[in-house]
Amino acid sequence: MTEGQERAFIYLDHAATSWPKAPGVIEAVAKAMEEDAANPGRGSHKMAVRASRILFDTRKALAKLFRIANPNDIAFMLNTTMGLNQAIKGMVQPGDHVVATAVEHNSIRRPLEYLKATMGVEVTYLETDASGKLEPNQVKNALRANTKLVAVNHSSNLLGSILPIAEIGEITKSHGSAKLLVDAAQSAGALEIDVEAMGIDMLAFPGHKGLLGPQGTGGLYISPQIDPVPLMHGGTGSQSESPEQPQVRPDRYEAGTPNTPGIAGLRTGVHYVLNETPQKIHTKEWNLTQRMMEGLLGIEGVRILGPEPGQNRTGIVSIVVEGVDPSETAFILDQHYHIAVRSGFHCTPLAHGMAGTTETGAIRASVGYGTTEQETDAFVEAIREIKQHYR
Amino acid sequence: MTEGQERAFIYLDHAATSWPKAPGVIEAVAKAMEEDAANPGRGSHKMAVRASRILFDTRKALAKLFRIANPNDIAFMLNTTMGLNQAIKGMVQPGDHVVATAVEHNSIRRPLEYLKATMGVEVTYLETDASGKLEPNQVKNALRANTKLVAVNHSSNLLGSILPIAEIGEITKSHGSAKLLVDAAQSAGALEIDVEAMGIDMLAFPGHKGLLGPQGTGGLYISPQIDPVPLMHGGTGSQSESPEQPQVRPDRYEAGTPNTPGIAGLRTGVHYVLNETPQKIHTKEWNLTQRMMEGLLGIEGVRILGPEPGQNRTGIVSIVVEGVDPSETAFILDQHYHIAVRSGFHCTPLAHGMAGTTETGAIRASVGYGTTEQETDAFVEAIREIKQHYR
Repeated sequence: MTEGQERAFIYLDHAATSWPKAPGVIEAVAKAMEEDAANPGRGSHKMAVRASRILFDTRKALAKLFRIANPNDIAFMLNTTMGLNQAIKGMVQPGDHVVATAVEHNSIRRPLEYLKATMGVEVTYLETDASGKLEPNQVKNALRANTKLVAVNHSSNLLGSILPIAEIGEITKSHGSAKLLVDAAQSAGALEIDVEAMGIDMLAFPGHKGLLGPQGTGGLYISPQIDPVPLMHGGTGSQSESPEQPQVRPDRYEAGTPNTPGIAGLRTGVHYVLNETPQKIHTKEWNLTQRMMEGLLGIEGVRILGPEPGQNRTGIVSIVVEGVDPSETAFILDQHYHIAVRSGFHCTPLAHGMAGTTETGAIRASVGYGTTEQETDAFVEAIREIKQHYR
Repeated sequence: MTEGQERAFIYLDHAATSWPKAPGVIEAVAKAMEEDAANPGRGSHKMAVRASRILFDTRKALAKLFRIANPNDIAFMLNTTMGLNQAIKGMVQPGDHVVATAVEHNSIRRPLEYLKATMGVEVTYLETDASGKLEPNQVKNALRANTKLVAVNHSSNLLGSILPIAEIGEITKSHGSAKLLVDAAQSAGALEIDVEAMGIDMLAFPGHKGLLGPQGTGGLYISPQIDPVPLMHGGTGSQSESPEQPQVRPDRYEAGTPNTPGIAGLRTGVHYVLNETPQKIHTKEWNLTQRMMEGLLGIEGVRILGPEPGQNRTGIVSIVVEGVDPSETAFILDQHYHIAVRSGFHCTPLAHGMAGTTETGAIRASVGYGTTEQETDAFVEAIREIKQHYR
């Protein structure tokens, strides 16, 4: 994670998953499998108790990061998508209305479209401007008497734009019945999140992106004020005799054996983030995007999506290179330059609609805390060469 | 995993999770995190391609183990519970009838009770005898015109009894509309499973028990003849532009980022099991249970649950010690003898009803392929001493 570290290739796909992970994450996973990975909450023997402690420690660290009062209001999930499915399908009922935006990932859009098709739920997708900007008033104007949920991402996974969550939270709260669900896939660990101050009722987050932990981890914060129906029913190691899912949290939302080794790794990642601070991480990533954009602006025929230079954004820079197919560009970047980026539609088709790239798709370069200026410069130079070659 | 290996304590909680894992599993997880854990299916760069290959290789190995024709009919899950929820909630609709047994784990019972309470689904729990034995004809007699699902475990997690899956499969198949879901939590890797020959339409299995892989892994086989509604909707890296979950498998049932490092570990575990063979593993575990039971039978006041000595069973031996509280026994075993077992109700309350242990609960000792005779002997001697002490 230190600058100047030599790598065999340049990894600019942090928005998909961060790599490498925080120092000590791999060792923490291995140690948990070696020494502690009994089945937590299912036995009273020492190893099971150690496994339970890993889970609780990690919840505590996450609660500190997101300013969550009670760590047990966080349930571990396989990934952000599972958290979003738990939140959406657990809360929305027939006849309900949901407000989302056109820059949502398919992990919000597809559950909503499913509920729309099967139980007549109404969904409003708020349009953003081409850069992904949303005015808080758009949410206010979209709210209806039957609005149950406002489901928005914190930052677009295509555009890097940042939604005004605190303002949206205030508007949602004043509405009464609506609850705010935030998809922190691109912001957890990289932007300040305070669920109380921002009025967030549910926060779905990945463990393997900005929190620098292993894949297979993630979570959902659920405010104690609400009680979504569990997505999974099953054994919890508690109240075994009851045919119903226990009310007690986190058990209510964590049926079955959890990913203890992965969560042990996540603990290390969250501690690292807490120590560095999201603010410092964001500043570094922002500086990298600004430098990258400055370089790209010097290449004719390159269009940068998302907020203008100087504006706030997360570590994502998506571009369209005139006359050059994005998939082909990504292929050349990988094969010839050993630079890993992502091309295509990034599971967010409506955001491409906003950006005007529905036909072409885009190339997304996304930086992490360990990315260096040399690496982003190499990407810019590679794009310059590819563009010249195709001229 | 070799006999005679000295350990700081004796682990007899393999039915909760196996420990240690197969040789090389931890290293495989670490290597995947180090080198390969990009986001599979979300990018075309080399690292993403390597991650995709890990998933496909593991599916192929699992398909070989369970005689599944098409590896893509296996979807990875967080755990068995998630597989069972996907299977049950994806198939059962209002007005349907389901046949299960009284020895089901809460991972089958709680989803069914939820559907019963919320959508008027009817459920028949077939009673077994005290040892957990079920006659195939009981299933035949329970089938109704509206039976959609027969949901049974392969082996009881309390009694170790083995259900006649092939016979149940034949009966279910001849019924027409009913499908057979098998919970292989206690059998995957330890008993022969052939989904074709046994007439299994859906098979939910853990990665972290008999397959000797990491926690956070498991899967669900879904026959190509059926199309359950996905439990999770979201991004799949495929058909991004569609608002609907893709039909293509395994994407349809694997929304969001998978646990690639865990699955890399599972691959190593499954290869180990394939190499040793479930038959050899079962024989060794069976011999250990027989030796353990023989020893326990020599202690007055110890009642062994499940099948009689000499009968077939998986590596589980649950006991009740007259006049001694199971939780206290487990505590003494842990603290004084450094033996890890599990006490209580094991998430299967109705099975305790069958066994007549609803009031007391039981102590469950469960062996693994790496368990030694010295270890099971030590458990027997510890129980003898505890019983004498409480006399």
